[in-house]
This record gives sequence, structure tokens and C-alpha cells, in this order.
Amino acid sequence: MKNFFKVKSLEQVMDLVRLFPPVAAERVSVEDSTDRILAEDILADADMPEFRRSTMDGYAVVSKSTFGASEGSPAWLDLSGTIPMGKVPDFEITRGRAARISTGGMLPRGADSVVMIEQTEMVGDTSIEVYKSVAPLQHVIDRGEDFKEGQVVLRRGTRMRPQEAGLAAAMGHAEIEVFKRPQVGILSTGDEIVPVTKRPSPGKIRDINAYTLAGLVRKAGAEPRLYGIVPDDEEKLFETCSRALSETDMLLLSGGSSVGTRDFTVDVLSRVEKSEILVHGISISPGKPTILARSGSKTVWGLPGHVTSAMVVFKIVVLPFLAGLMGADPGGNSLTIPATLTRNLASNQGRRDFVRVRLTRGDQGLQAEPVLGKSGLIRTMVQADGLLEIGEHVEGLEKGTQVQIIPM
Amino acid sequence: MKNFFKVKSLEQVMDLVRLFPPVAAERVSVEDSTDRILAEDILADADMPEFRRSTMDGYAVVSKSTFGASEGSPAWLDLSGTIPMGKVPDFEITRGRAARISTGGMLPRGADSVVMIEQTEMVGDTSIEVYKSVAPLQHVIDRGEDFKEGQVVLRRGTRMRPQEAGLAAAMGHAEIEVFKRPQVGILSTGDEIVPVTKRPSPGKIRDINAYTLAGLVRKAGAEPRLYGIVPDDEEKLFETCSRALSETDMLLLSGGSSVGTRDFTVDVLSRVEKSEILVHGISISPGKPTILARSGSKTVWGLPGHVTSAMVVFKIVVLPFLAGLMGADPGGNSLTIPATLTRNLASNQGRRDFVRVRLTRGDQGLQAEPVLGKSGLIRTMVQADGLLEIGEHVEGLEKGTQVQIIPM
Repeated sequence: MKNFFKVKSLEQVMDLVRLFPPVAAERVSVEDSTDRILAEDILADADMPEFRRSTMDGYAVVSKSTFGASEGSPAWLDLSGTIPMGKVPDFEITRGRAARISTGGMLPRGADSVVMIEQTEMVGDTSIEVYKSVAPLQHVIDRGEDFKEGQVVLRRGTRMRPQEAGLAAAMGHAEIEVFKRPQVGILSTGDEIVPVTKRPSPGKIRDINAYTLAGLVRKAGAEPRLYGIVPDDEEKLFETCSRALSETDMLLLSGGSSVGTRDFTVDVLSRVEKSEILVHGISISPGKPTILARSGSKTVWGLPGHVTSAMVVFKIVVLPFLAGLMGADPGGNSLTIPATLTRNLASNQGRRDFVRVRLTRGDQGLQAEPVLGKSGLIRTMVQADGLLEIGEHVEGLEKGTQVQIIPM
Repeated sequence: MKNFFKVKSLEQVMDLVRLFPPVAAERVSVEDSTDRILAEDILADADMPEFRRSTMDGYAVVSKSTFGASEGSPAWLDLSGTIPMGKVPDFEITRGRAARISTGGMLPRGADSVVMIEQTEMVGDTSIEVYKSVAPLQHVIDRGEDFKEGQVVLRRGTRMRPQEAGLAAAMGHAEIEVFKRPQVGILSTGDEIVPVTKRPSPGKIRDINAYTLAGLVRKAGAEPRLYGIVPDDEEKLFETCSRALSETDMLLLSGGSSVGTRDFTVDVLSRVEKSEILVHGISISPGKPTILARSGSKTVWGLPGHVTSAMVVFKIVVLPFLAGLMGADPGGNSLTIPATLTRNLASNQGRRDFVRVRLTRGDQGLQAEPVLGKSGLIRTMVQADGLLEIGEHVEGLEKGTQVQIIPM
């Protein structure tokens, strides 16, 4: 089993997303729903608005009363009263009459439009002059114009932004059903890794990967759970993996970059419950040594040891799986930013390259400047704002090329 | 005081950001620091790496031993042993010798480079052939190459991304000092507003604004606190504002769009402790009737009643103030997305217009399609992906113009 080499293209790996169903749903307060994924359809519980509403401060009128009105020849209307906010007007408006109304007020029966206050003048206490005609339904929102009762206003799978939360509230939902935040276990491996609070002795290094991955997981809308550091010991790795898999929806192994650790990982992942190694190598760079296994309906990832490479694999490969678990569109994270490449870039054919770039503002819009330096350098990851993909059939890109940057 | 009209340009309003100092700092776990703003400089506590480290699996060598090596004429090296991960090698490498090393391993004394395993072949148990020469420091990261001891690696004011969290961890910080999340009070006003859980009687409407604003505040990295709905009653508004101001760092009033409510708001804001009305009207659309007051070092906003307008004002005007409170760069929220305008757009000169647009993918990149419909329609806010700014000296924009979209 161990040496069954399953190098796959990125497309082949993405096809596997459908193997993993979304997590369960839960009810949350709509004010805490930002960036959660809706697990139910939200319907309009009534016409919205439920009454003909003014969108201006002014006078509710029958539009015909104003036809032909101008500065030189204003229309003269008699006042029927003032409409209190939040109340149903107890009178009707007929031709030749008007009622004072505020933005958001309910139009009286008979009135079909609102004249803006700026286009009127009081004449005594009971009449106004109107200097501009209004069309029927001008400066009003009619009953049901926003939404009709029973209409789906938000679909299951929608990512909740503040405005979607507002809309759910408008439909009477103080709580909504969203997909739970997937629990993502993070486990660092390797004899050379020490906890962040320890001073590393010579030859050792602090556990950078766990904290970087925890941030990535949280930013994606999931919940990181740290399982600490496991040395290069197959039994200990097996035990911790099994425990983590029983407590989480997805497991990320990372940190150990030695051959020994990678071998252990494959052995251990072959042994955990209902396991299958799905991917052993992806034709992308960085990220070739990535391992993907399943344990029942849970995914387990063996990420590259270099944290800079692990970040790229998380962003490009893991994130669509995590989106699927969260009930979101796995391809929904596809916003890219156009920019101009500042220098020539070589690339290997036959694999997809992801080059870290810094975005700077130039005269002609954004510029993408490749971040140079060895891939093991941690500073390159804080210098980068995004990734530039170079396709597998592309030999390289020339300075000045318009490129699309995946923000990170 | 009340009618002292202080309409200001957007630039004049932005100049006021400096009046409001950042909130206090607090210590948080580095794994929970994503999107927080660093309140301290982070220094390298040692050279990083602290030892010459391999970035490949292969053999640590003296590079000179490989000079001239090729497929046809390989270099022949004797093995001195294997370097265990996380350990200091207890031997030296001299010319003509090599030691097996894994990615992340520490080079022995004498070795200055690593030959990739793919470019070697074992010859018996104690020797290898090397088919390609390596240069000094090839496939290694030298001591201090990433960071030098004492160097500032992250500056106060940095927004923490996952990679910055990883870097802080690399420097031994399990906790870091960040600015507190500002507490932002949200208060809805107006006789026509009912709580979200109530069925609105005719003429009334549910409290959409509070939930939309709560989402915006949270997305910005601050903490929303809802103070409920206050009817059009000056004393009640004064009481609730005073209480909210004693408990929060910023207060947002919104919801009431009637003239009465707006008048109350200015009166009340003139009465609260150490108050000053700074802005009464901004020459932007939507958002003209926005009010900005201070109460000591706290900002109070009277936002437009239409939730769609309130969202624009939050994004364009309030957010830089909130960023300032959070210790972030007030202008740091300035990423825009280039797109092609799909239709002609008229605009009024003398004010800045912010038009809601939907972004769609076209053949030539992103297209910005203005969202049509009356500004009071709630559905327009969920249809929009961003805002297009039309400057005050621009009469309009033609179809096909390259524009910059502010995402929302």
C-alpha cells in the first residue's frame, strides 16, 4: 500500500470534493451570522413593504393633481393633515389635496406618489404650491415592490454578509439555521519541532505551522483545534491521529518535513479507521508532496513541511474541501485581482506553479511583484499579498503581462 | 446650535479621524489573533534560523567536492553518517565526504550546501555518486538568513493574518499585544420601527438596520452592542444615548428616517456630555444627511434611515474612524477591484456619488453592472457586490469605462 504512488492533477483532486458531505446545521442569532453559510431557504413572511411607503420627506398626493406644475405655474393643493410615523393615516387623499409625510411613512388611501418638500412652498397654514409634477408611484415604494409574500429571499448555501443578515431580520428571523463551523484538528509532527513557548535548542525549530494553519482555518470560518506536536514515532502519531479524527471533521498534519515523517504519515493514515489514501502527490508547485486520505467521511491532509508551501496548499487545495464541509460553494472562493507583472517569470511545464507576489499600486493600476527568496524563508510569507498561478502548459510569463492574483 | 449647518466634504470629514485616539491594548493568544491589530513591535528573539538548515532531502557536502560533477563524470563521496532531525550532528564534513540529511536538518560543521537526493546514487553502503555540482549555500538557509536577532519582524499597527501569527509564534510569542475590539453601540430610532421578532402592524417596519450594522461592525473587527429601539421621544433618546456612550467607544444611531427623528437626534447629541456636533451633512450621495458628533473622545453617528444608504456611509465614512480606534491605518481599507462598466451612468457634479454594482465575470475580466432600483429597496443591497465612486467633478461615466470597485 505504502508505495502506491497516486500523484494527481489539481483537477482530479478537486473532483474528490464531492465525496465529503457538509456538516450538520445549527441555529444562530442573526446578528452573529456574518460569514456563516445559510442551511435553510429564507422566505418573505409577508409582502415587503406591506404598505405603500414614502421614500422622501414631502407631501403625499394624487399624481394627477401635479401634472403640468412648474415654477411659473405651480399646482395649488389643500392640506389634509400630517401622517404620523408608524401609523395608518385615517383619511383619504383626493385630487387637489396633499398630506405631509416623512420618509418611511405610509401613504393614505388615494395617494399614489410623493412630492419632495424641496419642490413645494407653504401658502398660509393649510395650502401648498407644488413646482414640479410627479409621476404615479414616484418617490414611493409600492406594496410588495421589494418582495412578495412566500418568495425565497435567501437561498440555502448563501454566505451571510451584513446585508443578508439585515434581510433575514426584515423577514422576522432573529435566528437562522446555518451550517456548523467544521472542527479542524491541527497536528504538528517531527522530532525537530518544539512548542512556541520553548527556546529551541540547536537543530530544532518552533512550531510555526500550527499557528499559521490555525489562523487560516479560522479565517475560512472553521474552528481550529490544536493537537500539539508528535515526534517521529509511528505509534504516537497513530494514537493522536485516531483521537483527533474522533473529535474533528478534518485533520491537518504538518510540520515534519523529513522523509521519515512523511513515511510515517502514509503508514499511519493507511491504518486509521476506514482509511483510504486518495492522493499521494499533486502536480503543483509548491505542494507536490501533499497527501490526502479519507477516514470514513473525514479528510486527513499531510501538508508539506515548509510553512510557506503548506499555506499555498491550504489556500489552493484544502480550502475548497473546507468550503464543501461548510455547505458553501467549493469554487466560491475564486475572486482574483488583476495586476501587471513586474518581471519575467520562468516556470516548469507539466505542473501548475503558484508564485507568491506582493501587490503595489502603480500608475496603471496594481502591480504584481514576485517575492524572491528561498521557499523555506518565513519572511517571504509575510511579504506576499497573493498567489499568481502559472498554468501547466505555460513556459513562463513576460514582464508586463496582465495576470490574475489570488489574494492571501 | 441646532440649525448650525455643517455640511462638509468627505475629505474634511476624514481629517477628523485624528481627533480620536485608539482604544487600549490587551494580550490575546496568537492563535486567536487573526485580523487583530498589533499593539507592540515583535522582535526576533534570536537569529532565524539559528543554524544552517537544509531545504531539501539529500546529502550535506562541501560544495567544492562536487565542482565539475556531471552525469558522465560523477563526483564520488564517502558517507559519514545520517543527521538525525532535531539534533546537532556530532561529526564534521570535509572534502570528499557527505552526510544524509532531511529537509529541515542541521548541517554538520564544514558542510556548506546540500545535494538533492534525486541527483545522487548510492554505491554500496558507504558511498554515493553525485551527478550535478552545487554552489556554496545551495539548498540551505544560512544562520540568520531569515531574520537577525533583535530585528523588528512585525511592527505595531500590522493587521495580523495567519502568516503574521505564524511569524510571531516563530519568535516565541504564544500571546501578543493587540488593540482591543472597540465596543460599538447600535441604537435604532423611530416610531415606525418594531423588533425583529414582532409582526409589524400596518405602517410599521422591522428593525433591519440594527442587524445590518451589527454585521458590518463585527466584520470590521469590532464588537457590536445592540441598545434596541427608541421611539421618537427626545428624553428616552437622551437617556439611552447617555447610557450607551458610557458603555461603548462609538455609537451608531439609525433607523429613524423621519424629519422628526433627525431633529431629535441633533438636539440630543448637543445635550450629551462634552458634546460637539462636528458634521451635519456630507456632500456624498447616498449619505448626505449623516451627522457626526463627539462626546469627549467618543464618536456618535446619526446615519441615514434607509439601510442601503446607512451601509454606504458605514463603509465609506464610519469605517476609517473605526479603523483609527482599532489602531489600524484609517486608509488601509482601500483595496479596489478593477472592472468594466456595463452601462452609461449619470452623476451630479459637486458631490461624490457611490453607486452600488454587481460584479460579473465577462470575457475581458470583471464587469460592473449598476444595481438599478429605488434606494429604499432592500433587495438592492443583497444584489450589490461593491460600490463605484463617481468623483465630484465628473458628470457621468460611459459604458466600457474601466472603473475601480470598492468591495462590500
